Order: sequence, then structure tokens, then C-alpha cells
Amino acid sequence: MAASAGPEIERLIGLLAKLPGLGPRSARRAALALLKRRDQLLEPLSAALLEAKAKVRACGVCGALDSRDPCQVCSDPERDRTLICVVEEVGALWALERGGAYKGLYHVLGGLLSALDGVGPETLRVRELLARTGEVKEVILALPATVDGQTTAHYLAERLSASGVALTMLARGLPVGGELDWLDDGTIAQALRARRPA
Amino acid sequence: MAASAGPEIERLIGLLAKLPGLGPRSARRAALALLKRRDQLLEPLSAALLEAKAKVRACGVCGALDSRDPCQVCSDPERDRTLICVVEEVGALWALERGGAYKGLYHVLGGLLSALDGVGPETLRVRELLARTGEVKEVILALPATVDGQTTAHYLAERLSASGVALTMLARGLPVGGELDWLDDGTIAQALRARRPA
Repeated sequence: MAASAGPEIERLIGLLAKLPGLGPRSARRAALALLKRRDQLLEPLSAALLEAKAKVRACGVCGALDSRDPCQVCSDPERDRTLICVVEEVGALWALERGGAYKGLYHVLGGLLSALDGVGPETLRVRELLARTGEVKEVILALPATVDGQTTAHYLAERLSASGVALTMLARGLPVGGELDWLDDGTIAQALRARRPA
Repeated sequence: MAASAGPEIERLIGLLAKLPGLGPRSARRAALALLKRRDQLLEPLSAALLEAKAKVRACGVCGALDSRDPCQVCSDPERDRTLICVVEEVGALWALERGGAYKGLYHVLGGLLSALDGVGPETLRVRELLARTGEVKEVILALPATVDGQTTAHYLAERLSASGVALTMLARGLPVGGELDWLDDGTIAQALRARRPA
């Protein structure tokens, strides 16, 4: 804690420490940086937070966060509307967009099925996904390579089987720059099983 | 970047990325966390920022950040007023307060002398320090063990020499839990030079 620096600083540090990536120590450093640069950083950040709160919404179609609804991707006429990529969260969507290789639409599930955390299909945006399969030819499941990710993928595969869309998932294998020495056994086994002609 | 998520999200991420300890990637994660927890996190953080901006000031006596002026330490009758600990920045003051071992007053310099960065004595709170030496018996220089820290310590020693106060500095040596294997040569050499009877 900042000891005797008053309740306002304590509160600011406490809230900053709740952000992912910031612990108590870095939250203190961030609070100091903000208090030192009031006009250039503290005030604009406060304003940006309120503006984001007021304007940013979940896209009614795909669930992405955007100040437009439908979002930029959903309303882009250049996008391939026969392709939907299913992601767990908006962060994954952003990562795919940064890659720049994907030109279809998205569907944000809002989580993964999890028996442990008691997350059932009704809390995810599954119904919304099934309702979108009309003109869609392929659904790409871009879910994480975890137990919950794979459980969710299997569940979605079952629910989508009747719709007749092609179902694919992201390839598994060596990441770019991946040295075999440093990779876990699971990834190496996957890459070996999925080997292809050189 | 968050690609096509709209200018509000971009601006929020850009400002978060300016905080120490947050890079572009963690700023995106922080922005997502804030947008997911609007009422519990985003709104309180925005309010806490504005409140801190409005209420937190530099203490007129020692330069610490506080919502009271003079600050909690300066106005605490339990504190030893014959002792002033000189620190570079408020972060160092907080660190000493967390330690809980120091019961005197502080003086925040607001930086260090630096020929490289063009920081001269007139930009630091040196004059304010000299003006406080009236009832003071000892000034502890708690400055970092860097070139600039030591330059500043030497400069302050010279300026304070006429006042007749005792001048001390923090001990150098092994940190608590420090294994010799992992310490840099400089620290080991210092600890050896400053060795004392066991």
C-alpha cells in the first residue's frame, strides 16, 4: 500500500491492481505515473474510460465490441459472408484481425463450456450462432487447445451437424519460430500426427 | 492494435499502454477487462482518477503526494522532527513507509542531478531542503546507488556542510535473502568493504 498517502490514492491503486497484468507494486507505479502526468495521462484516461463505457457495445450480430452496431466487420461489404469464425472472446477476434489473414465474419461465444465452472450452453451465444448459419458454408472453430476449448468444439460440432455447413478447426502444430527443443511434448506429437508432404 | 474496434477502444488502449508496466498487449487485455466489468471496474476507475486529480496535491513541506497539506507524515506529532530522509521520488517514500522502520520526516527532491538529461540543482527541491534544516539534527540521503544518485548525494553533502547537521546515507550490502551466487560483483565488493564484526 501507499501507506499514509490518503484514501484517494489508496482507492486508485486498489482499482489499478485489479487490471490484468498489474499487481500491487505495478499499480503503485502506475498511480504515481498518472499523478505526475495529470493533464497528459490521468485526465485523458478518465475521459477515455467514460467515452468507451458510453459508446462501446457488443455487436448485435457477432458479439464483438465496437462503437458501431453492427460492428465494422459485420457491416463490411468486402467480408466473405459464407464464412464464420467462432472465437471464445473478443481478444481472440482482435488477435485474428491483427493477423490480417482472415476475411470472413466472426461469432463471439462469450466463454467456453466448463463443467468445473458450471458454464452450460445456455450462457454462451450458441443459439445466436445456430441462427446465423443460413447463407454460411463453413464454420471455423478457432477455440483454444484446452480441455474446455475442445469440449466446446465437440458440442458445437454436434449442434451444427444438422445445418449442413462444413466445420473446420485451426491447425495444430509448430508455431512460427518454434524450436523443437523448447516445445512441449503435446505440440510435437500433434505436429507429427498432422505431418504433410514437404 | 484492436484492429477495427473503433476509435474509442483504440484511444483507451493507447492511453493504458502509456502506464509503466503495461505494453500494447497487456493494455489490450486491460481494456477488455474494463469493458467487461463496466460498473465494477471501468466506472469506479474513471471516478477514482478524477477524484485523485482533484484532491491529491504535493505536500507544501516535504513534497509527498497526499490529499492533505501538510501531508499525513508532516502533520503527525509522533514523528521525529529532528530527522529528514531525502528521497528521489514519492515511490521511494512509499517504500520506506511500507518498511515501517523510519519514524522521521521526509523530503522529496523530485529527481536527481543528471548531466546527461540536463537536470540541474535549480529544477530539484534543493532550496526547500536547505530551508528546513533549522531544528534538524540529521539528514539521511536515501538516494539510489546509481551514478546520478551518488552525484546528487555529493552535491547535497556540499550544500548541507555549512548547516552543521549530521549527514548519513543508507547502508550498502547484501539484501535480505541475498545469495552471493546471484549478486552482482559491485554489491559483493561494497558488502566486503563495509564489513563489520559478527
